[in-house]
Amino acid sequence: MLAEIITIGDELLIGQVIDTNSAFIAKELNKIGVSVYQITSVQDDKNHILTAFKDAESRVDIIIITGGLGPTKDDITKKTISEYFNDTLVLDESVLKNIENIWKQHLRQTLLQVNKDQALVPSKAKVLMNIHGTAPGMWLEKGEKVFVSLPGVPYEMKALIQSEVLPKLTRKYHLPFILHKTLLVYGLGESTLADKIESWEDALPSFVKLAYLPDLGRVRLRLSAKGFDKEKITLEVQKQIDAVLPLIKDHFVGFEDEDGAVESIIAKQLTALGQTLAVAESCTGGKIAERFTSHAGASNYFKGSVVSYATDSKIKVLGVSKDIIEDNSVVSYQVAEAMAKQVLQLFNSDYAIATTGNAGPTKGDSAAEVGTVFIAIATKTEVYSEKFMLGNHRAKVINKAVNKAFEMLLKEIFKN
Amino acid sequence: MLAEIITIGDELLIGQVIDTNSAFIAKELNKIGVSVYQITSVQDDKNHILTAFKDAESRVDIIIITGGLGPTKDDITKKTISEYFNDTLVLDESVLKNIENIWKQHLRQTLLQVNKDQALVPSKAKVLMNIHGTAPGMWLEKGEKVFVSLPGVPYEMKALIQSEVLPKLTRKYHLPFILHKTLLVYGLGESTLADKIESWEDALPSFVKLAYLPDLGRVRLRLSAKGFDKEKITLEVQKQIDAVLPLIKDHFVGFEDEDGAVESIIAKQLTALGQTLAVAESCTGGKIAERFTSHAGASNYFKGSVVSYATDSKIKVLGVSKDIIEDNSVVSYQVAEAMAKQVLQLFNSDYAIATTGNAGPTKGDSAAEVGTVFIAIATKTEVYSEKFMLGNHRAKVINKAVNKAFEMLLKEIFKN
Repeated sequence: MLAEIITIGDELLIGQVIDTNSAFIAKELNKIGVSVYQITSVQDDKNHILTAFKDAESRVDIIIITGGLGPTKDDITKKTISEYFNDTLVLDESVLKNIENIWKQHLRQTLLQVNKDQALVPSKAKVLMNIHGTAPGMWLEKGEKVFVSLPGVPYEMKALIQSEVLPKLTRKYHLPFILHKTLLVYGLGESTLADKIESWEDALPSFVKLAYLPDLGRVRLRLSAKGFDKEKITLEVQKQIDAVLPLIKDHFVGFEDEDGAVESIIAKQLTALGQTLAVAESCTGGKIAERFTSHAGASNYFKGSVVSYATDSKIKVLGVSKDIIEDNSVVSYQVAEAMAKQVLQLFNSDYAIATTGNAGPTKGDSAAEVGTVFIAIATKTEVYSEKFMLGNHRAKVINKAVNKAFEMLLKEIFKN
Repeated sequence: MLAEIITIGDELLIGQVIDTNSAFIAKELNKIGVSVYQITSVQDDKNHILTAFKDAESRVDIIIITGGLGPTKDDITKKTISEYFNDTLVLDESVLKNIENIWKQHLRQTLLQVNKDQALVPSKAKVLMNIHGTAPGMWLEKGEKVFVSLPGVPYEMKALIQSEVLPKLTRKYHLPFILHKTLLVYGLGESTLADKIESWEDALPSFVKLAYLPDLGRVRLRLSAKGFDKEKITLEVQKQIDAVLPLIKDHFVGFEDEDGAVESIIAKQLTALGQTLAVAESCTGGKIAERFTSHAGASNYFKGSVVSYATDSKIKVLGVSKDIIEDNSVVSYQVAEAMAKQVLQLFNSDYAIATTGNAGPTKGDSAAEVGTVFIAIATKTEVYSEKFMLGNHRAKVINKAVNKAFEMLLKEIFKN
């Protein structure tokens, strides 16, 4: 079963907004056995939208549309869907009630006609009630095919996908099982990795696909299998994983979690062991802390962090000795290790990460070359660090440092 | 002049990777007067790619392709382009030299045949040298149209866009001027705002377009104009801005900066005044610090931050009095203000932001309802705070809180 995702909105085409909706929808569809054939971003323009509908209908059975359902003049999706289906708009009383409810709870201004008009839906549509916003989702069938129109606002779209769209799709279609397993492989370049596992890759059965996703300092190896026999698919993927692991053993750090975030692997392990973490960041500027705290449950293991961006704050806030900085320069392994030890004590945690470096573009407070980053790990019994040369592109240096920090902590907490 | 962006990669269609490349390319094309008509994400599949090329060629003149240029079996873009152009692949010596250079500098493993093969390019292609990676960019003309193939790795693609693609496009085509100006409007819902400015919007000249981008707690109002007379465009947009500002004066906080980030407005102002900022975060978990430090030049004004995630770290690290927490609960305006005052002193900054709240999903250490967030601003002479009820969706609560914090700080630093 194939789907196409059509995202409507000029803001996507001028690059003002990054499309995160498609990735979410694609992941959710995969879980129920639907593959996304194409993602198409089009303008808030009637003819463009109609053409996109027609093209999508010619190649897939499930068409998911996001965007253009707001109350302002540039929102034309609903009218366009109605035209495509040779339909007319009618007032849906339950949607109007929902809009009035939301208005009363959250806003003090009067309900305007354009807001009431959000309760108009094509007569052929089944309404998918949006409890988080005023624009209803809509489900319209055309023979064996279905068009689903959803608001573009991410949390509204996500709720509708999970509570309305996926259940209806599983009821309507006989769907195969899709399984993805992603192995996190650190410290090997893409082509070197491919070379190591070449004979294994060539021997994969036809229904198991392999893809390489290179990143900064690591490669994600994604195995995907699809079929109607869930048990067969699961066993085969496990068999293939068991076959490849010995070939990459020194570089394999774990499987990518459901949410795709390596910090979730760390979170699970620390939570299971009842252990805690604190972080002292300089050049990574809060990115490491933010990665951990962006997931629910972080308070189970994450004590906190210090972003000691200015050099004097490493002394004043973290308590790193002024001499250590003056003797070795602020970008040094001595300072990284001192930061890690200090923040471990300050937050009384079991583990600590510290980063100090020069992300660029200028050298700043240190004589160190742009791209030099020291990352330290501290535990209650030891502290150690590594030096990395991460290039001269600022964002790349920061992201690479974050990945290296996760890698070092992963190795530490899984040491046994 | 219209463009289409074709992103190639199964990882996009299973939602494993978010497409940030398109937004970047679209923004850059806009700067030189090229509008993006459509963005199409397709599979690593020859026929799918060929169809996408054909469809794009039928509706635009500039086709930018990203992805599928790696050395592994799933990377088939180059062969497919060659087939589309009825061409053959030939070895480009300068590209081979570039690959050998990169390999020598960064990797210790031997150069494999698949890496050398990255130096093969369609004979009709003009090579766009990729100094950051092994896959060359390629420029192929077809009459008045051009196909540009770029690596999918973001920093490699960005460098090629800026150093090679944009200059070549401006030399090849006579391009109009496109101007976007985005006004940041806080505290008004989308439809209420539209109502306030309705007569102004209806009177806009036809070459000036208006779009609404609602967000959490704010609306971005985007004015766009395109034409060959740069001076006329610029004057007209300014005239329209002057006309709308009085209608939204209590809610307008500034123009969205070049990079689209509100923190850049803050950064510019603080840097210009030689003033500094420190942040104490609890529920926002480092997101505020990370927003500031993600931009070059943060060290000019950003002293650092503390993420005092666990309650006891507010006491131990920030120095907030235990009594204040016990008397008022950790999610309270008293604690928010104490955190702001303490972090201001700790980092010796001119301004401080503090956040404390309950993002959910559970109540945690506090009796406060999920979604309760207190944000405080401290200066050298005063401290004040506001209470917000931000709903019960964790990510939304955090992002809304970040937006509110920026709004409060913006208003404080622009007070005069």
